[in-house]
Amino acid sequence: MTRVFNFGAGPAMLPTSVMQKAQQEFLNYAGMGASVIEISHRSKEFEAIINEADELLSELANIPSNYKILYVHGGAQMQFSAIPLNLLNRKQERKAAYVESGNFAKLANKEAARFGDIDIIASSEETNYDRIPTIDPKLIEDEYSYLHITSNNTIYGTRFQQFPMSNKVPLVADMTSEFLSRKLDIGNFGVIFAGLQKNLGPSGLALVIIREDLLEFAMPNTPNLLHYKTYSEKHSLANTNNTFAIYMMKLVLEWLSEQGGVAAVEEKNEAKANLIYDVIDQSNFYLATAQPEHRSIMNITFNLADNNLLDEFLNQALEKGLYALKGHRNVGGVRASIYNAMPEEGCKALAAFMHDFERKSG
Amino acid sequence: MTRVFNFGAGPAMLPTSVMQKAQQEFLNYAGMGASVIEISHRSKEFEAIINEADELLSELANIPSNYKILYVHGGAQMQFSAIPLNLLNRKQERKAAYVESGNFAKLANKEAARFGDIDIIASSEETNYDRIPTIDPKLIEDEYSYLHITSNNTIYGTRFQQFPMSNKVPLVADMTSEFLSRKLDIGNFGVIFAGLQKNLGPSGLALVIIREDLLEFAMPNTPNLLHYKTYSEKHSLANTNNTFAIYMMKLVLEWLSEQGGVAAVEEKNEAKANLIYDVIDQSNFYLATAQPEHRSIMNITFNLADNNLLDEFLNQALEKGLYALKGHRNVGGVRASIYNAMPEEGCKALAAFMHDFERKSG
Repeated sequence: MTRVFNFGAGPAMLPTSVMQKAQQEFLNYAGMGASVIEISHRSKEFEAIINEADELLSELANIPSNYKILYVHGGAQMQFSAIPLNLLNRKQERKAAYVESGNFAKLANKEAARFGDIDIIASSEETNYDRIPTIDPKLIEDEYSYLHITSNNTIYGTRFQQFPMSNKVPLVADMTSEFLSRKLDIGNFGVIFAGLQKNLGPSGLALVIIREDLLEFAMPNTPNLLHYKTYSEKHSLANTNNTFAIYMMKLVLEWLSEQGGVAAVEEKNEAKANLIYDVIDQSNFYLATAQPEHRSIMNITFNLADNNLLDEFLNQALEKGLYALKGHRNVGGVRASIYNAMPEEGCKALAAFMHDFERKSG
Repeated sequence: MTRVFNFGAGPAMLPTSVMQKAQQEFLNYAGMGASVIEISHRSKEFEAIINEADELLSELANIPSNYKILYVHGGAQMQFSAIPLNLLNRKQERKAAYVESGNFAKLANKEAARFGDIDIIASSEETNYDRIPTIDPKLIEDEYSYLHITSNNTIYGTRFQQFPMSNKVPLVADMTSEFLSRKLDIGNFGVIFAGLQKNLGPSGLALVIIREDLLEFAMPNTPNLLHYKTYSEKHSLANTNNTFAIYMMKLVLEWLSEQGGVAAVEEKNEAKANLIYDVIDQSNFYLATAQPEHRSIMNITFNLADNNLLDEFLNQALEKGLYALKGHRNVGGVRASIYNAMPEEGCKALAAFMHDFERKSG
């Protein structure tokens, strides 16, 4: 069976070896005569899966012991509500600071504004989010309950190279499109959250890593399953969780371990991204949409100088097994999402195709 | 490969033919060279899946055209918050009536009480939920925003044989453990919701069927992804949904259609349940825990007259491939969950084992 190189932004491709393992045991998990999706979330077999996921995550991301790992319903966008509901009350003022570096950052601050006062302390909307906006450290005021950023912007192909630091205000980061693709010092963050469906597994679940002391501030009317304490007290099994997603994530984490862990994968990711950025930078045929110093290594966005060639580019790419390269409607052009699971050969194939297409059409 | 007869209460067994189809196309959906869990929720292929799910549901459940079908994050328990957030404001008083017929009913009214005044108008707690409590129609007051019931009680093995009717107050029913197992007149309900993981698919998603006019009453601070209108306006794809669960549900619905639809399956379900109830009723060795006139046909609960034999019963059952028969800790004893996907042979095998075990131990 031929698998395409899938450049989709998410739900995204998963490692083929992971998919094969899941397929192989799909009807009969661990010799039980039942699928992993057919067994109780309270069975000892599922408990072993969630425990192993915890251990792998702790090790891979080097999570300090004063942080809790939560598996939370609803993907990253549900956290756009849960974050303010859980954290705004940390300070009497119910104020938070948001950095508007792209579409999801904007959705996050719009949703947070339901629950308190939101200050947008930096935005790159004016340049259609082609960069991470500069944050004036003086604007990170003591009275903010937290500072929210989107660390990598799937749509615009930018990322924070360094993270804003404050010892007064907890940093909350939506890392949906890059968690475990680069080394991080978790201790610098108050909360990290990520929908699984880009770099970690299938859709319908979010991972939340939260510093313990931040579990104490939820508003009284927080819905039970948006309350992070509900998850931390019951090991994310207060109700039936998305067991398939947790299982698949565990397999992805095992694979990541086999790859040598985050540092090793980050190196590969940089090399993979450079294969494509090099083609763009050596050409006038392709035009990068993100500013060079803000480029993501997960989502590479570019236009064709002659936009009339775009459909032809996408069609020919598809014929070569290069799938889902169409850019988001907010940016247009091409987007190559190259998460951890994208093999180097996929990036090589895309780079070769880009050269070839330019040569024939340029 | 041997599959056990899986009597687990949920996540529960799915039809083997459905599991086989999912396995077969797990790495390559519709010839795309990618898995259904690796493609965009906005791709035309996934759109076709969700459209087909809608059509199958409309047909199987005979859903009137003034109802919306929503696929909602977080399972049934997330709806314990969403229901009051979306509906309590229907009336100025912000009051709702709840029937407490079991554990999940109790959790539902406890959660609703965060958001308004909840009256428990009937309860069978005193008899450890061995029956559906009698509802005095005079207590269903005009000023209630809605009346909430749990139509089938997974833990206690009871169900509403008839539903309370009121032309003044919309009826909201949690049907997680029985939706599409019996004929229903949807038009008698304001909202039906069901977590998928018992009778419809894998865990991590809920189905909501709501009368259109009830979409207009959400409280202003309702989190965006608990707001039913967010789903109804965007065909449940405002954000990345649990695409795997929707896909699996579609396969289950196709299977249900092939079985002849809900009426045909209901007949089979009754026959299946009777195979086991007959053994219980013809014996002093087994004791039913639910009152006969309130018995569920999805979850059959019973004790052994000599409770000391319980572990032996469960162990021997497991050796015969009869899996997950242990009762919930609130009731003890044995619980056989026999959702649509449980074949008649599974019930026959259990009945035969029960006879045999009684004969040897009685």
